Amino acid sequence: MEALSINDIKPIAVDDATAPSLSIHKTTIQSLFKRRRVRVKELLGAGLSLVGQSVTIKGWAKTLREAGAGAFCFLEINDGSCFTGVQVVVNKDIPGFEDVINSGGTGASFAIVGDVVESPAKGQLIEIKATHVTVYGGVADPATYALSKKRHTLEHLRENAHLRARSNIHSAAMRVRNAMAHATHTFFNERGFLYIHTPLITASDCEGAGEMFAVTTLFNKHGDGNLPKTADGKSIDFTKDFFDKPAFLTVSGQLNVETHCCALSDCYTFGPTFRAENSNTARHLAEFWMIEPEIAFADLADDMDLAEDYLKFCAQYALDNCAEDLAFFDKNVESGLLDRLKATIDAPFVRLTYTDAVELINKPENLKKGKFTVKPKWGDDLGSEHERFITEQIYKKPVMLYNYPKEIKAFYMRLNEDNKTVAACDVLVPKIGEIIGGSQREERLDVLEARIKEATGHDPAEYGWYTDLRRYGTVPHAGFGCGFERLVRFVTGIENIRDVIPFPRWPGNAAF
Amino acid sequence: MEALSINDIKPIAVDDATAPSLSIHKTTIQSLFKRRRVRVKELLGAGLSLVGQSVTIKGWAKTLREAGAGAFCFLEINDGSCFTGVQVVVNKDIPGFEDVINSGGTGASFAIVGDVVESPAKGQLIEIKATHVTVYGGVADPATYALSKKRHTLEHLRENAHLRARSNIHSAAMRVRNAMAHATHTFFNERGFLYIHTPLITASDCEGAGEMFAVTTLFNKHGDGNLPKTADGKSIDFTKDFFDKPAFLTVSGQLNVETHCCALSDCYTFGPTFRAENSNTARHLAEFWMIEPEIAFADLADDMDLAEDYLKFCAQYALDNCAEDLAFFDKNVESGLLDRLKATIDAPFVRLTYTDAVELINKPENLKKGKFTVKPKWGDDLGSEHERFITEQIYKKPVMLYNYPKEIKAFYMRLNEDNKTVAACDVLVPKIGEIIGGSQREERLDVLEARIKEATGHDPAEYGWYTDLRRYGTVPHAGFGCGFERLVRFVTGIENIRDVIPFPRWPGNAAF
Repeated sequence: MEALSINDIKPIAVDDATAPSLSIHKTTIQSLFKRRRVRVKELLGAGLSLVGQSVTIKGWAKTLREAGAGAFCFLEINDGSCFTGVQVVVNKDIPGFEDVINSGGTGASFAIVGDVVESPAKGQLIEIKATHVTVYGGVADPATYALSKKRHTLEHLRENAHLRARSNIHSAAMRVRNAMAHATHTFFNERGFLYIHTPLITASDCEGAGEMFAVTTLFNKHGDGNLPKTADGKSIDFTKDFFDKPAFLTVSGQLNVETHCCALSDCYTFGPTFRAENSNTARHLAEFWMIEPEIAFADLADDMDLAEDYLKFCAQYALDNCAEDLAFFDKNVESGLLDRLKATIDAPFVRLTYTDAVELINKPENLKKGKFTVKPKWGDDLGSEHERFITEQIYKKPVMLYNYPKEIKAFYMRLNEDNKTVAACDVLVPKIGEIIGGSQREERLDVLEARIKEATGHDPAEYGWYTDLRRYGTVPHAGFGCGFERLVRFVTGIENIRDVIPFPRWPGNAAF
Repeated sequence: MEALSINDIKPIAVDDATAPSLSIHKTTIQSLFKRRRVRVKELLGAGLSLVGQSVTIKGWAKTLREAGAGAFCFLEINDGSCFTGVQVVVNKDIPGFEDVINSGGTGASFAIVGDVVESPAKGQLIEIKATHVTVYGGVADPATYALSKKRHTLEHLRENAHLRARSNIHSAAMRVRNAMAHATHTFFNERGFLYIHTPLITASDCEGAGEMFAVTTLFNKHGDGNLPKTADGKSIDFTKDFFDKPAFLTVSGQLNVETHCCALSDCYTFGPTFRAENSNTARHLAEFWMIEPEIAFADLADDMDLAEDYLKFCAQYALDNCAEDLAFFDKNVESGLLDRLKATIDAPFVRLTYTDAVELINKPENLKKGKFTVKPKWGDDLGSEHERFITEQIYKKPVMLYNYPKEIKAFYMRLNEDNKTVAACDVLVPKIGEIIGGSQREERLDVLEARIKEATGHDPAEYGWYTDLRRYGTVPHAGFGCGFERLVRFVTGIENIRDVIPFPRWPGNAAF
């Protein structure tokens, strides 16, 4: 029996619901791009309405099993558009049957033309009765296939990151990640924030260069490890490097986005940032994405309002758009996830000063209950154990701590009238701990320059471009940074940050 | 007269139209974040409907001029929300008048409470009659202010990239850039493409390491330029580096996004990419953003359809959402811009094989008209002069060239049946030249491995993770890459790529 070639497969009978015409406001342009298939998401989403129609689906086999003493087989086909696959029944007399049996099963790829029928099986409304099957690609040796049908550890999936999007957990995580990215853009765009692409490579080391990656082309000419030296022979001569001076990967777009906020008003960044910290933990990555809104004419209270709105919006967006994936996570990853997300939306976040938080932790009953390794006193940075205790044990919901001691916060945060604290805020959420850090920015030139000297030891002149924003038409403004992978962990319940990004980078690993 | 403090300013009388409630599908969450001002965009967009109401606006002065022999002054206030500013009339008896006069004018920042009145002046429907003005920040010495009222060169603006968002041209470019980013996400999201964040740092040098930036932490410990060496003393010992091996900044997310496309079906990336080319031109950046969709179960024709839809969608989105900014560019940057964008939308793109294109260029009348520095023969890469001649002189609209000689294209492009060409496509547009490059990917394992050997000289085993996608359930797929800055140049008419990105990076420049 000859298999159909790709181009022989006729257009799908069901119109592709995911290819809207290019209608915007004024004009309607006819869309050229059409899938020559119906996605499983739309197929299953149509309920029983397509019963009796012929459709074309394309995807990968989750499972293949023969039945009826070889008279037919079942294929479960998934195309990544949704969590659930669709069951396909292939009878022995159907063109392509032998190819299906010999395809290797799990992981093999197919084009299936068939009729939508009501399913006699439990848990599914419909199935496909195949009329023609084409195998695009088999799995020649299932024994070597890293994503075989059996259950795999998360570590095994990480080691096979190029194939793990075929697993239930990673595909669900990637769909939720996609939804959170769209939630982010939707949230800020609807509120009139401009998306600004701040630079990744920077020769400005305003936040301190210790934990930054250097970016260089010196290795091309000096692969022997003998780099060009300055006249005194003591240092690398960066005038020979691509940017004529030391250049680094950014740790934050904040200072850059402030320049545009102080001209265009409300802006945000959403892009990769980097940390060269040698921390091999489930909570840190060397490369991660961050969202950094910056609000003009705003103070810390506005900033906290925006942060609370944003997290609630994201939780609601996930519940509305990722119900099937969240149900999987609720069942298999974190029992109670859905309730936690709903609770996030339903009640106001707690707002508590740092000073009150320290006092609270030091209450005898809390010290007893918390069993902390460190007992914090005023002026200390709070540890993850304290933050999680406050949000998970005391309040059992998101908590916004604000007004931190200036000594433990960055120079650009606005000094409060007490001269001891700055208008900074950390948002703590159950399961994650700190998910957002923000502050009102110091808009007073004299105070900012004094803080630069005090907090960094540097000459304020080195921050000239940044202080110019205060020299010429300064305005009160505020902003925050939200770790995007923490957000994805927050809405999925996934523990390890390496499992919520396509290709995680950590010390010793930049594979793929 | 004492100025109002920030917190004294009363809530705006007009509801902020840009803070929608968090209504999504099921729940309505009350929005906490509210601007304590009305944006100039909504104010001007309201036409005469707000006349008689009191509003609060905040922004920066474009101009300040005294009039009526000192009896009043005019402020033109812009907050970046739209191109046009709003005129404010401040009478001498208004609280804050003296502060306004002493503010330094252009660049100073204000909070203005006032009544909306019909404007007697030409070209504006309304103006604000101030009842209270607060100066947030003056311009102490206008002589030192880089963005003073006079006309500045683009080069001067680039040198002051931290302030240039206050210029008409850069603020307009940034609003259009923001719109193009949203157009991109909207386009792909509406069509069911998943947004995948491919990694920036990679130890995989599948596309060749010659023009890549190295990423390292070796300089921290070896700032003297004597890097650790391998046992033979001839090379850098990268086992001492952060990732235990040489690591680079990516030049494309394509190979990575293919892994997710071959599991989740249609995906796209949109993120920064890097080129360490020493090219100091108006067309290249060391760091730029790229959009890379990848379509499963698709061939080159599908890819070309998607590319044409995408560019038309972006052009239409700009016309619909950036009318005022485009009118500025049409008048001041490229005469005919609006007509060019409309023409892009109205007619089908030309589709022409590479072979036909070479023949076309070599027609005597075209050789004469084109005055090319190089006369291309079959097998040569086409130069920018040929590409622009085809799209600008011959067809005067976008042209898609396809089926290129395999020798001048990458190993992963699908070999056509003629064994000489590959299923690749470049999209050429007037004003820019090449804006998109795409291809159907080689999905046949044996052909791909042969092409890796032939085109790169490498052992296919080095591409094991990539070839695994063909080893296990391979599917036909295709995709393209679109340079985002070229897209912004395309819709704004701006010539120099350094002027369409917030902080451009090129050899010798990574400032700010």
